Amino acid sequence: MLHFTFLGTSSGVPTLTRNVSALAIRNSKNKDWILVDAGEGTQHRIQQAKLSLQSLVAICITHVHGDHCYGLVGLLASAGMNARNAPLTIIAPKEIQQWIEATAQLTDLHLPYSLNFIDVNQATQILRITDELSIRVHPLSHRVPSFAFSIIAQYTQKKLDTQALIQLGVPKGKVWGDLQQGLDVQFNEQTLKAVDFIQIKMQRAHAIVGGDNDRPELLAQACQDAQLLIHESTYTQAILDKVGSGPMHSSAKMVAEFAQQQGLSNLILTHFSPRHQDNAGQQAIAEEIRQFYQGNFFLAHDFDQFGLDETGRLSKIDKP
Amino acid sequence: MLHFTFLGTSSGVPTLTRNVSALAIRNSKNKDWILVDAGEGTQHRIQQAKLSLQSLVAICITHVHGDHCYGLVGLLASAGMNARNAPLTIIAPKEIQQWIEATAQLTDLHLPYSLNFIDVNQATQILRITDELSIRVHPLSHRVPSFAFSIIAQYTQKKLDTQALIQLGVPKGKVWGDLQQGLDVQFNEQTLKAVDFIQIKMQRAHAIVGGDNDRPELLAQACQDAQLLIHESTYTQAILDKVGSGPMHSSAKMVAEFAQQQGLSNLILTHFSPRHQDNAGQQAIAEEIRQFYQGNFFLAHDFDQFGLDETGRLSKIDKP
Repeated sequence: MLHFTFLGTSSGVPTLTRNVSALAIRNSKNKDWILVDAGEGTQHRIQQAKLSLQSLVAICITHVHGDHCYGLVGLLASAGMNARNAPLTIIAPKEIQQWIEATAQLTDLHLPYSLNFIDVNQATQILRITDELSIRVHPLSHRVPSFAFSIIAQYTQKKLDTQALIQLGVPKGKVWGDLQQGLDVQFNEQTLKAVDFIQIKMQRAHAIVGGDNDRPELLAQACQDAQLLIHESTYTQAILDKVGSGPMHSSAKMVAEFAQQQGLSNLILTHFSPRHQDNAGQQAIAEEIRQFYQGNFFLAHDFDQFGLDETGRLSKIDKP
Repeated sequence: MLHFTFLGTSSGVPTLTRNVSALAIRNSKNKDWILVDAGEGTQHRIQQAKLSLQSLVAICITHVHGDHCYGLVGLLASAGMNARNAPLTIIAPKEIQQWIEATAQLTDLHLPYSLNFIDVNQATQILRITDELSIRVHPLSHRVPSFAFSIIAQYTQKKLDTQALIQLGVPKGKVWGDLQQGLDVQFNEQTLKAVDFIQIKMQRAHAIVGGDNDRPELLAQACQDAQLLIHESTYTQAILDKVGSGPMHSSAKMVAEFAQQQGLSNLILTHFSPRHQDNAGQQAIAEEIRQFYQGNFFLAHDFDQFGLDETGRLSKIDKP
């Protein structure tokens, strides 16, 4: 139902193997997708991942730090040069709107489509992005205002109650078809009402994608309804203790303890400090998560893909 | 003497094989280097090319279009995170200074080193960047003000006139050494003055790097002293005729004819439209250059390296 492609998993600076933050989340039933964060080079990653800027329906920016937004203006410009004309929603701190407007003015940038800015501070309600995708905003704790985004895919499936029709002796064929289409039907001098024979099944996938944050517990309420949390884990606890609390990031331990306490079934960690990007560094993060969390978890690498299905099952998708 | 690394050779948008504009020019006698243009993703290319942001002495921006400058702020931020503290000179349209300042303010960017902005419109004199590197600015013609930069490396070599010393019967050793150091020396009750025995040899390499431009002839005077011109060749003449003059770019033919008329000995073409990036497209550009220009020329690819030596000889450097 929701399909995730990590476009950048490094914190602060790009490295030779990982780019700065960006995550594509696609409605697996069509091509619509949402981008969360857009560090410099995100448009390059989008090209490499074969995603189309034409199908992008919204961009969420978690906070104003450059490693989460400096790729935004190039991406918007390229979408324009590729003749995008559909309006694009941007949910972000209001400084991002000011930055895009200043950039457009100072660098002779003229987009052939309109931007629909939503100030993340004002977004207290669920934001409906498409028929099936919606977004909710949750405040976090960082050196600048930072936010998490609930990405919710909701599908209604209409299923004909064939059991009941068989019991009434209604044969398969046009009558079944009309009822499925929502039409009332005359059968054996009786009116069969479509509403009586159509079962509506709701399917829902809900993932929370956090920005930089040193207090995972702020997501406690939001996580009650979520099947997956994607959260930064910049350091191990030992390194965070050495670095100090100034940068206001989370350790693997902090996120793992929170997820365990919440009974969260799926966790993906990202936004790793360059010192945690080699094998030993990744292993240290993984061991710390394993120590404090019994659920299903992954450490994201650039171009990793995951699927979250309607039953809340998260699985890694093998690369072709 | 001058060592060139192309970091981006695509016009407008990045493609899977080429990034947007950036060119590193290094003084081959030390690690000092100058960056001309910084499209999005330039810091990634710098990492891949193993150049250090610590040794970067100046950035020149040819014009304000995003494919030439959107990588600037990420690059400055990363240099800061890598603890650069030496001041950095930026020679650019004044809008670039305004953009960097607006970006810093809106995205919580605090650089631990100072920026020395030089408004390219005010830079009418030669700008001395280091003891050996200097820059001169030349106006071009494009949809926004655009500029070319003369990058000049000048070395003085002090050579002892050993022939004269031998004729005077001065033996090799301390006397020769002292004279070489610039010290006057007593020899056989005679004063040997250092200035009389030291020959100063000047070596100079001069390349002109153009920004977007539809009138190569504007560089006629500047090119009289140059050994190499690096210029955009966005299209072939046939494609430019089809696209029309609106984008204000040069065709291969326009640049080739100009270089031939100037008697320029070396030419490197770059900034190719995505339609000219496959084999056939590159061949069409090369053939057009060959038709109108008899000198030494190259079509630049990303990561191509070239050396311009003290005799004005340009050669491609094989990749390790």
